Amino acid sequence: MKPEMNGAESLARTLLASGVDICFANPGTSEMHFLAALDKVGSLRCVLGLTEGVLTGAADGYFRMRNQPACTLLHLAPGFANGIANLHNAKKAGSGIVNIVGEHATHHLDYDAPLTADIAGLAKPMSHWVRTSASPREVAADGAAAVTAAREGAGRIATLILPADASWGEADRIACAAAPEPRADVSAAAIADAARALSQRGGQGLQAHGGETLLLLGGEALREQALEWAGKIAAKTGCRLLAEGQNARMARGAGRVKIGRLPFDVDSAVAALANVRRIVLAGAKPPVAFFAYPGKPSLISPRDCEIITLADADHRLAAALEALAYELDAGHLVPSHIAEPRAPGLPADLGRPTADGIAAVLAAHLPERAIVVDEAVSVGRGFFPPTAGAAPHDWLNSVGSSLGYGLPVAIGAAIAEPQRKVLALIGDGSAMYNLSALWTMAREQLDITVVILANRAYNVLRGELARMGGPAPGRVATDMLSLDRPDLDFVALAQGHGVPARRAQTLDAFSKALVHSFAEPGPSLIELIVD
Amino acid sequence: MKPEMNGAESLARTLLASGVDICFANPGTSEMHFLAALDKVGSLRCVLGLTEGVLTGAADGYFRMRNQPACTLLHLAPGFANGIANLHNAKKAGSGIVNIVGEHATHHLDYDAPLTADIAGLAKPMSHWVRTSASPREVAADGAAAVTAAREGAGRIATLILPADASWGEADRIACAAAPEPRADVSAAAIADAARALSQRGGQGLQAHGGETLLLLGGEALREQALEWAGKIAAKTGCRLLAEGQNARMARGAGRVKIGRLPFDVDSAVAALANVRRIVLAGAKPPVAFFAYPGKPSLISPRDCEIITLADADHRLAAALEALAYELDAGHLVPSHIAEPRAPGLPADLGRPTADGIAAVLAAHLPERAIVVDEAVSVGRGFFPPTAGAAPHDWLNSVGSSLGYGLPVAIGAAIAEPQRKVLALIGDGSAMYNLSALWTMAREQLDITVVILANRAYNVLRGELARMGGPAPGRVATDMLSLDRPDLDFVALAQGHGVPARRAQTLDAFSKALVHSFAEPGPSLIELIVD
Repeated sequence: MKPEMNGAESLARTLLASGVDICFANPGTSEMHFLAALDKVGSLRCVLGLTEGVLTGAADGYFRMRNQPACTLLHLAPGFANGIANLHNAKKAGSGIVNIVGEHATHHLDYDAPLTADIAGLAKPMSHWVRTSASPREVAADGAAAVTAAREGAGRIATLILPADASWGEADRIACAAAPEPRADVSAAAIADAARALSQRGGQGLQAHGGETLLLLGGEALREQALEWAGKIAAKTGCRLLAEGQNARMARGAGRVKIGRLPFDVDSAVAALANVRRIVLAGAKPPVAFFAYPGKPSLISPRDCEIITLADADHRLAAALEALAYELDAGHLVPSHIAEPRAPGLPADLGRPTADGIAAVLAAHLPERAIVVDEAVSVGRGFFPPTAGAAPHDWLNSVGSSLGYGLPVAIGAAIAEPQRKVLALIGDGSAMYNLSALWTMAREQLDITVVILANRAYNVLRGELARMGGPAPGRVATDMLSLDRPDLDFVALAQGHGVPARRAQTLDAFSKALVHSFAEPGPSLIELIVD
Repeated sequence: MKPEMNGAESLARTLLASGVDICFANPGTSEMHFLAALDKVGSLRCVLGLTEGVLTGAADGYFRMRNQPACTLLHLAPGFANGIANLHNAKKAGSGIVNIVGEHATHHLDYDAPLTADIAGLAKPMSHWVRTSASPREVAADGAAAVTAAREGAGRIATLILPADASWGEADRIACAAAPEPRADVSAAAIADAARALSQRGGQGLQAHGGETLLLLGGEALREQALEWAGKIAAKTGCRLLAEGQNARMARGAGRVKIGRLPFDVDSAVAALANVRRIVLAGAKPPVAFFAYPGKPSLISPRDCEIITLADADHRLAAALEALAYELDAGHLVPSHIAEPRAPGLPADLGRPTADGIAAVLAAHLPERAIVVDEAVSVGRGFFPPTAGAAPHDWLNSVGSSLGYGLPVAIGAAIAEPQRKVLALIGDGSAMYNLSALWTMAREQLDITVVILANRAYNVLRGELARMGGPAPGRVATDMLSLDRPDLDFVALAQGHGVPARRAQTLDAFSKALVHSFAEPGPSLIELIVD
């Protein structure tokens, strides 16, 4: 006799009751009962990805836009493993995700079947919370605990391992995750410390004495409201504003407080902070170099720079900045650094696609409330300043910097915000990770414009080789950093995945393709050939 | 002043001195010094893959054909993570691999930079040996120890984590891995036990009393010479011969000892062993079900079946079977089960591509000494019997069963055996994992014919859903098991990667495409549409 409700169904109903209503899935045999439960439960939306990096990345993008964890459904240790790189990115971005990982039935684990491996061992380095359900009756409570864990602080990675027998065995309850804890407020002492640092002489125009004070923003301090408070603080104190080098999501565009990022290049980053004597951290960590290089520092702020923590990424950051603004008597001020709308029209020269030219074309056409997913790596570093005055938009970056974040995150963002256009800017090397995301975009008819910036090289690494102080690249190194033998044809690759595509070799062609793509519903791809 | 020789160079020279002369690589910043060292060292061949699953799978394929470990070069934790699924497959296949994983400089790890993560934690579940080099002067010894570890027994996974400062700092030596230990021989007692079991009445024709005795072969017991000894033992004792369900490499074809595999389906497997009373294991493990299912056994041999271990996968298996044959006084016999050459010509009906029809076309055209890499999953299960009398060939299967093994393993096999044709039979669902392997095939102009068996579904899972005793698949389950919305176009996908391709919808078209592909050097792809 089959049970009235099995563990899988109790989990599906628990997830729904706890507010998790979307599942990015690539199931296998051990997840068949969960799949059958989804059919029975009905309202938990299921999105198929052809490789698991698509799924974990989509869950990351979904969280960034919705502030709600999605769940993933992954098949055993290898399925989980394929999702790890984008879990790394999600973890660094502070995204909350509930991973459901199917496992062999408990009694089968002793037999070392082909797919048996240590799932928990793989999960621990990339999860804040890991649990294996011990029996079908415990699955509901475990599922609720996973959702609770995923919602902690800014967002956490929770991994629930679900043995097949816990899935198919009889269950007797549905659970519901506790309501999310309100995010912590910062202490009055932290606000007073930050206010003291920001009140010291040394703002703009006062650099001769005491150097600069920098308000360094990260996490949710880069949302629109929080940025307004930061702009008021800057208006009052003359402090500099900067964002961390990589950010999960930043509100940008005309009328919003404009903010730059710490440069990627270690020398530029050190130079950018050379005059800074005090850094107030709001959701940011102390600034560090992306990589270590021989003879170069890891911590990029000056040695004698004082670092004051107003709030970390788990705090209510808008509230912390608001409180700080009022402490500084800046609550009524007009924010400084408001981005002017860009001058209308396209750049005069629509020929060779330079980084500035590409950015100008993007800025001209970016639809209002667009979501920009930026994995343009080397070419895209210069896109920020020219797009500051574009129509208001959100800009998402890879925080963990594992390649292959962009296309999957675009899927999650598009599903979270179906009324908004998503623009994914992807380097060719990055695009080859999780390229099958294109198929999921086609299947779900997501409103995503993918721009592949094809320079046919791991160009970022050419710079890195030089920064490492190594010799000029020889035959082997050149070969390992080049993608031009053969050239990848992204138009054919997109069409193979069911996504319409065109190629642009000039800014004029790019501009027209972009207009066309934004006008059409559903996904499309533009391969832009750059030097 | 730069050192005369840095850690990276000492590692490259150590690998070469230890017989590791090929590196499957996807480098990042932390591996730049190793790349520069490869330029200096020269004779260590470097093959670029666009995703790390291609690299670890290629190393697996290389080992299967060459019995020599290759090294991989992987970038930090995410790069390693992307290679895990195929390391799982390699580990289950008993392949030896040396992974070199770049890590941040030691002093940089405290700063939680974007790419910082627990590499050793991820490596342990998929490696037999893991070490992090503590300083540049220790890198050579560590590299030699890694090669020694990878060569243990049948083959092991060794992972060496190389911090950037161990790579760029001054080194003073080159090391050389110890010569591989000779593989262990089995004891006289084990041979006597196996001989006793095989001498008991109960062979073919004697099943009424005592049931059957099965000689179950795995690992290197499936190479040509070992199979000859097994055939002699069968000729003498009337025992049955079977291979495990999944095998790293099996010698097959006309004139060789023909051997079936344990069925994948648990009911068929149980039925196949129903009359077996004694199993002698030679490089095989006790037969277990692939998955657990409600109410079905994990161990598929009958409860009262006696299991006798002649040899495990680490033993000298051909020698063990030879000794057993002589113990049984069978050394001089003609082996039984020799495969007759198939009747020449193509099947009469060259219309709809049935599994039997496809197998018959393959058997007709398979070039002598071809290497068949089989990841055809559902369609391919029936390919074995009709190809038994084809020209002599090696047949490689996924042992760990993580999808995406086939295309990368084909790369490694083609590089290990450049004079032989490689035929990769890949299900469409499997092909979407590590599809960028096609680009590496084009870049290296490898002699590989890829056949995509496109049934536009995870068909294997439809069977599994039924076996699980679940309901008929509903809307969600059907959707999650289908790849037909949109259809993938593998011809476009191949061309996008630089590989020529054509589509076949009949056996006639398939046959012609196969002849054409085998006649041309370099890679090509055939998309075969099947029901």
